[in-house]
Amino acid sequence: MPSTVTEYDTIAAISTPPGEGGISIVRVSGDQAFSIVKKVFKGKDLEKVASHTINYGHIVDPTTNDLVDEVMVSVMHAPKTFTREDVIEVNTHGGIVPTNKVLQLIIGAGARMAEPGEFTKRAFLNGRIDLTQAESVMDLIRAKTDKAMQVAVNQLDGNLEHLISSLRQEILDVLAQVEVNIDYPEYDTEQMTTKMLLEKAKTVGASIDELLKTADSGEILQHGLATAIIGKPNVGKSSLLNRLLDEDKAIVTDVAGTTRDVVEQYVNIDGIPLKLIDTAGIRDTEDKVEKIGVERSKKAIDSADLIILVLDSSRKLEEEDIQLLDATSDKRRIVIFNKNDLMPELHPVEVSQLKSDDIILITSAIKNDGIEQIKDTIGKLFNAGIEDSSSDVIITSARQAGLLRQAKQSLNDVISGIEAGMPIDLVQIDMTTCWDKLGEITGDSYPDELITQLFSQFCLGK
Amino acid sequence: MPSTVTEYDTIAAISTPPGEGGISIVRVSGDQAFSIVKKVFKGKDLEKVASHTINYGHIVDPTTNDLVDEVMVSVMHAPKTFTREDVIEVNTHGGIVPTNKVLQLIIGAGARMAEPGEFTKRAFLNGRIDLTQAESVMDLIRAKTDKAMQVAVNQLDGNLEHLISSLRQEILDVLAQVEVNIDYPEYDTEQMTTKMLLEKAKTVGASIDELLKTADSGEILQHGLATAIIGKPNVGKSSLLNRLLDEDKAIVTDVAGTTRDVVEQYVNIDGIPLKLIDTAGIRDTEDKVEKIGVERSKKAIDSADLIILVLDSSRKLEEEDIQLLDATSDKRRIVIFNKNDLMPELHPVEVSQLKSDDIILITSAIKNDGIEQIKDTIGKLFNAGIEDSSSDVIITSARQAGLLRQAKQSLNDVISGIEAGMPIDLVQIDMTTCWDKLGEITGDSYPDELITQLFSQFCLGK
Repeated sequence: MPSTVTEYDTIAAISTPPGEGGISIVRVSGDQAFSIVKKVFKGKDLEKVASHTINYGHIVDPTTNDLVDEVMVSVMHAPKTFTREDVIEVNTHGGIVPTNKVLQLIIGAGARMAEPGEFTKRAFLNGRIDLTQAESVMDLIRAKTDKAMQVAVNQLDGNLEHLISSLRQEILDVLAQVEVNIDYPEYDTEQMTTKMLLEKAKTVGASIDELLKTADSGEILQHGLATAIIGKPNVGKSSLLNRLLDEDKAIVTDVAGTTRDVVEQYVNIDGIPLKLIDTAGIRDTEDKVEKIGVERSKKAIDSADLIILVLDSSRKLEEEDIQLLDATSDKRRIVIFNKNDLMPELHPVEVSQLKSDDIILITSAIKNDGIEQIKDTIGKLFNAGIEDSSSDVIITSARQAGLLRQAKQSLNDVISGIEAGMPIDLVQIDMTTCWDKLGEITGDSYPDELITQLFSQFCLGK
Repeated sequence: MPSTVTEYDTIAAISTPPGEGGISIVRVSGDQAFSIVKKVFKGKDLEKVASHTINYGHIVDPTTNDLVDEVMVSVMHAPKTFTREDVIEVNTHGGIVPTNKVLQLIIGAGARMAEPGEFTKRAFLNGRIDLTQAESVMDLIRAKTDKAMQVAVNQLDGNLEHLISSLRQEILDVLAQVEVNIDYPEYDTEQMTTKMLLEKAKTVGASIDELLKTADSGEILQHGLATAIIGKPNVGKSSLLNRLLDEDKAIVTDVAGTTRDVVEQYVNIDGIPLKLIDTAGIRDTEDKVEKIGVERSKKAIDSADLIILVLDSSRKLEEEDIQLLDATSDKRRIVIFNKNDLMPELHPVEVSQLKSDDIILITSAIKNDGIEQIKDTIGKLFNAGIEDSSSDVIITSARQAGLLRQAKQSLNDVISGIEAGMPIDLVQIDMTTCWDKLGEITGDSYPDELITQLFSQFCLGK
């Protein structure tokens, strides 16, 4: 991890969500932050006020002397700032036009428009946080449930970084010992050395395995589980959805970054965010009691990670049920036999299309019967990895998981190399690769292009 | 205006726009702000830090001791704050779930959820700003163009308040003089008193007239002018719209408050925000070259304040053109004869449906010919009132304009009362009514229910 502050140019961006609100913030970071904002600020001399103070004044267009906004300006001196650089945050009266105008004036006074994630990137490059903490910043912002938030804030606190660093230290220690053994060869040295490497490869490998157990659940926790609730019309999809929603009283509507075109809806099921696909479709078709057909569901099914397929247990299986069962046969699914408050006409054993790994639940959405069971099932299904693992640290990104798998592979190579009687110096190389891969997780060893790519996924102003 | 700080309960709300961003702010205001936030904050003792300082720490759930977010907490002591009360602003890492969690914990620790506009209402009730300044806060947030922003920030700076207050002072002076004259009756007193009242009624009335001239334009400036661009398919609506957009490179997409259901689009024409109605319709139908018909346009026409009706000057008038001309005959409209790059087949004199107050322009959207003229025309049309007026203060709200009209009516009553030889004490009553009505504009005399209603139109967290 780089640990000295390098000097970069001064960047600026709107850091609050886009839109109208009571307060918006234009954040400025870099060597020239104070002198640049000073040019457009009427109030105290920002270069002379104490660090971590809030200063009242006005943003003024220096070319026309027109007032632009009444503002509060936070002045924070390096290094105790988000980026470890000098930081100014201009708190405006909110609103799209005035906040953009303030940003434009600051850009005009000499700052550069920040790229998405660039403030956090600087926090990383200046050594304040490692890559796992940087990732957790975005996880925190995008968290859909309390549980997801909890995992993110713990990662932000550095617990994954500490674990990875201690594993790397263990590898470094054993590699150092190997060097010593090679330099001072004595009786039995080679045998001792291989034994040591083998043991270390196994213990570090076991820690990595425990971490990897959490990865699937961790990723779902952070990014949501794409779920399609499907079924023929009048089977009770809408009531079921309402039950799931009512129970939690928590539907999070997420509007994607800047475009605001894509609206996604999340339901919080025991801390697991289900990303509902085509919810509108469910409500529409239930309202109109029209033929939904497999066609419309096809798209939802394709993009879903989990299918909740609803059947009507008060009626015999119909053609449309069979079509939906067939269309989802290769998906992880929960098959709900709904309407068990009515005379039963359909029993699971009669449904030959069910697979052995389908989860079958019998409910009455209308009577609120079996709803808890659905939630428990989903909760268990996706917490399984986390509960199985002895690790109290959770892996939340595909990047982290991918690097852990590569690190684990190097350890496997160490073990098979030793078993095949390969020379120590070749085995050493695999052990060093493991150390490198773990280092990429925290960003201690990570190529520049990948760093740039990683941070470009951040939102603007962060 | 109330000028002493009354003690209210402590309120809290998310003050940044809803959604994901780099920073979100939970604002807390009131007597207990410091002691409440202290209960959920791990860091310095917020009751002991200096005013207007920024303090690093963590928000912690006091019941579980779980970390919720890493935050910067701004501490501001009364009275130099937005509300004139003790204020805390918790700057979180953004994101919907963590920010809501922070708010919930603060509510749990004893704050009350703020109502929309309640922070600004307290700033008014505690005497920091008058009602015109409070209104300008919302104007500023909702400003669609630089010009609108300029007018709002000047009003926030108090220029309307100063003007109204000075008019009220003039009235008060003359009323006091009338009292003196009544108490010490001498020769000619009555004649002098009526003359004085008459003159004052006329000069104050003239000032109000100048202000009122700006009201229509001021309101359009702040709230946008609902504009429908209509015309049969392939007449060039889409190219025209693109020209208007390209010229300014400024389309503001506005997402209404919390629901985000209603998306409005504004084009900035020489500082005048045109609120485009059914823009999607324009683009859709031009793309598909399908029959638009009058039906679809009807709705857009009904809700528009300005119609831009596009005709094709290279073709004779068609049935659909006539239908659109008829449907908009009672609307303020600009009729564009487009495609003047082609052989002319249609001349304005041939269009019997045109009214004498229609503005007729001849353009070629494709060749970018006549576009500046459209913009100039719109600019002149709506800046007219402001340019005619000698006042450098602009009225921006229907509330302000309504009260000014009532104040003016009272002055007219003064004048006609004097002319009809009514007794001084009756004339005095009308003069006092004028003083009251002007006071309602600034909020010096304004009923509680109306205050509540006014602030309820604000956004949450302001």
